[in-house]
Amino acid sequence: MKATILNIGDELLIGQVVNTNASRMAQMLVAAGIDVCGTYVIGDNADDIKYYLRHCIERSDVVLMTGGLGPTKDDITKRMLCELFDSELYENEEALDNVKRIFAARGYELTPINRQQAWVPRCCTMINNVLGTAPCMWYSESPLTINGESLTIKGDPPLSMSGKVLVSMPGVPFEMINLMETEVIPRLQRHFRTDQIVNKNLLVQGIGESFLSDLIEPWELSLPKSIRLAYLPQSGMLKLRLTARGGHDEREKLEQQVDEAVKRLYPIAGQYIVGEDLESLPELVAYTMKRAAKTLATAESCTGGTLAHQLTALAGASEYFRGGVVAYSNEVKECALGVRHETLEAHGAVSEETVRQMAARARERLGADYAVATTGIAGPGGGTPEKPVGTVWIAVAGPKGVEAKLLKFGDRRAQTIERTCNAVWAELIREVRGENYEI
Amino acid sequence: MKATILNIGDELLIGQVVNTNASRMAQMLVAAGIDVCGTYVIGDNADDIKYYLRHCIERSDVVLMTGGLGPTKDDITKRMLCELFDSELYENEEALDNVKRIFAARGYELTPINRQQAWVPRCCTMINNVLGTAPCMWYSESPLTINGESLTIKGDPPLSMSGKVLVSMPGVPFEMINLMETEVIPRLQRHFRTDQIVNKNLLVQGIGESFLSDLIEPWELSLPKSIRLAYLPQSGMLKLRLTARGGHDEREKLEQQVDEAVKRLYPIAGQYIVGEDLESLPELVAYTMKRAAKTLATAESCTGGTLAHQLTALAGASEYFRGGVVAYSNEVKECALGVRHETLEAHGAVSEETVRQMAARARERLGADYAVATTGIAGPGGGTPEKPVGTVWIAVAGPKGVEAKLLKFGDRRAQTIERTCNAVWAELIREVRGENYEI
Repeated sequence: MKATILNIGDELLIGQVVNTNASRMAQMLVAAGIDVCGTYVIGDNADDIKYYLRHCIERSDVVLMTGGLGPTKDDITKRMLCELFDSELYENEEALDNVKRIFAARGYELTPINRQQAWVPRCCTMINNVLGTAPCMWYSESPLTINGESLTIKGDPPLSMSGKVLVSMPGVPFEMINLMETEVIPRLQRHFRTDQIVNKNLLVQGIGESFLSDLIEPWELSLPKSIRLAYLPQSGMLKLRLTARGGHDEREKLEQQVDEAVKRLYPIAGQYIVGEDLESLPELVAYTMKRAAKTLATAESCTGGTLAHQLTALAGASEYFRGGVVAYSNEVKECALGVRHETLEAHGAVSEETVRQMAARARERLGADYAVATTGIAGPGGGTPEKPVGTVWIAVAGPKGVEAKLLKFGDRRAQTIERTCNAVWAELIREVRGENYEI
Repeated sequence: MKATILNIGDELLIGQVVNTNASRMAQMLVAAGIDVCGTYVIGDNADDIKYYLRHCIERSDVVLMTGGLGPTKDDITKRMLCELFDSELYENEEALDNVKRIFAARGYELTPINRQQAWVPRCCTMINNVLGTAPCMWYSESPLTINGESLTIKGDPPLSMSGKVLVSMPGVPFEMINLMETEVIPRLQRHFRTDQIVNKNLLVQGIGESFLSDLIEPWELSLPKSIRLAYLPQSGMLKLRLTARGGHDEREKLEQQVDEAVKRLYPIAGQYIVGEDLESLPELVAYTMKRAAKTLATAESCTGGTLAHQLTALAGASEYFRGGVVAYSNEVKECALGVRHETLEAHGAVSEETVRQMAARARERLGADYAVATTGIAGPGGGTPEKPVGTVWIAVAGPKGVEAKLLKFGDRRAQTIERTCNAVWAELIREVRGENYEI
């Protein structure tokens, strides 16, 4: 079964907004066992919308579209759908109640234009959008047959929807995500009686892809045929994904198979598995610190707050993260962290001596079990022949002392900051795991 | 003239990577006066690549494609282009020199597989990619005619390229961006003798869109016909964009017209124009602090380092940013910032008293002219009936004292952090401008 994604909106087309909807929708479809064969972005343009709706329905079994559902003149998706399906708009009672509820909660008056948000084409099944005023609309053969209408496209030969599904959703990301999770994906799984998919991600650290592949080959060969294995390398780590696929009534069996496979992997490669079902290094840091029941502090110069930002973007950071100092200027390195003036004078801000003191002082002053520190020249300015742009020192301070490391990157600022953060997290995880627990 | 963007790659299709290339390419095309009519993402699949290449060439004048140019078996773009244009691959000398140079610089041995990166179809113009090993390829009628080949597509009727252009680029973002900026956009402008476009962005703050529109209406009506005006609202500010469009030899005249128009706008709305040609609030903060020659410090609780991260992501932050404290736990608020224990006990961490002390102490301790502070409940946990999730206090401390403000957001963590940052920047800019300079 194949799906296409059709995102409508001038702001996406001209690049004013990055199309994160497409990747989120694709992730959810793939996780549900539905293949994505194409993603399209088009503008708020009647001809294009009609053309690509037909194009997508012809080339796939499911078309998921977003956008063009607002109350303004630009938003023409519902009108286009009526033309395509030779249907008309009516005021849906449940959708109207939802619009009224949202306006009342915000203390706004409901104008006639906003009321139009509750209008949907007769030929569709309305799916309530509890987080916003634009309803989700589901088109498949069944409701068309019930209304006794045949599916024809004005001026074009009739288009067969037989068994196919078209879903129109609002383009606001959190509304779309909620509708996909709670309504659209479960309905698609029922409608198509899709294969059951059970995914399990294992985060692997400290071993290269080819070495891991050699190590676990006998285990891989012994897996049931329903389970496939994928190696997904990410910066500084590797994600090992087990995907079990089976009939729509086999979920329990598949879950057992995956659990069983993972259990048998630990005696072989357990020392490299640092987490299950985690997505990123900051998530892994959170997992590691909580599991070890240790606290963390940060002292950042060249990463300028990015380490702290990455940790606190995740809910629950206060369980282990005490706080940090962004010691951008030398004065702040001295006054807020207590790096010695003589050290900065003698060795400079970007030096092993400075980074060691930053980590050690942050650990002491902020009262944490561990502290990480960065100092470097992110660029584009500030480089010297001795310390060119991209020179970075990182350190991890813990109960057993301070470990420091020199890194050398290129002259691209954003990449240097990102890679420095990844290197810090990898070092920290290694230290904390080594000193506190073994899986 | 219309362009389509075709991004090839399974990692984009399944949502593993967000397709930022499409938005960057679209921005550059639009700024060069080339309209984008569609963006497509497809997988590394021969049939789809051939189908959509033909589809895009039929529907637009320019097709810009990325991806599928690596040395592995998955990467089939060059093979598909040869099939489409009935051409063959040859080793391009200039491309080979580039590959050799890059491998030598990295200290890697050049394997036969990597050497294949220098192979390109005979029918194309090779454009050297100085940042990577995959060359850029430009297909238009001229080189086809030179080789004396007629453009036919195997098994399909011949496809007319008359005047049209197809460009294949690597999918690595920084390589693509460099090629677009230095080679592809200038060549497209020459090839199509496109209209000249001169853009000027003015950041406007402290006045709503409709009020601004009323205020500047007489000025707007007096603009030459070549200049169009667009209002682009962003969180907490407004971007006013002047776009002048004229013949390919009229650039100088257009620039003069735009300069002249902007000069005449200042006496009317100058007090609301906070910057020219800036893109974001952090850029505006950098501009404002540098212009006022004042320094800044941050004290962050609920934003957890995001303020500092946003400032230091921009080059040159060290000119005005002293540093900051991420005071996530109450202990750090006390020990690193000097917030009084009694204040935290009596009013709690999320309170006007605490945020005022955070800002004032950060300003003193970090030795800055201004300091900003945040404390709040970003959620999803930690809310109480009195202080529900989304309650945030912000403060700005300056030479004349401390201003504090209560904000109320919803229960979505990422949004609360983002909106808190925007509110802080808007308040800071207002304070610094009011106290230091008037435009």
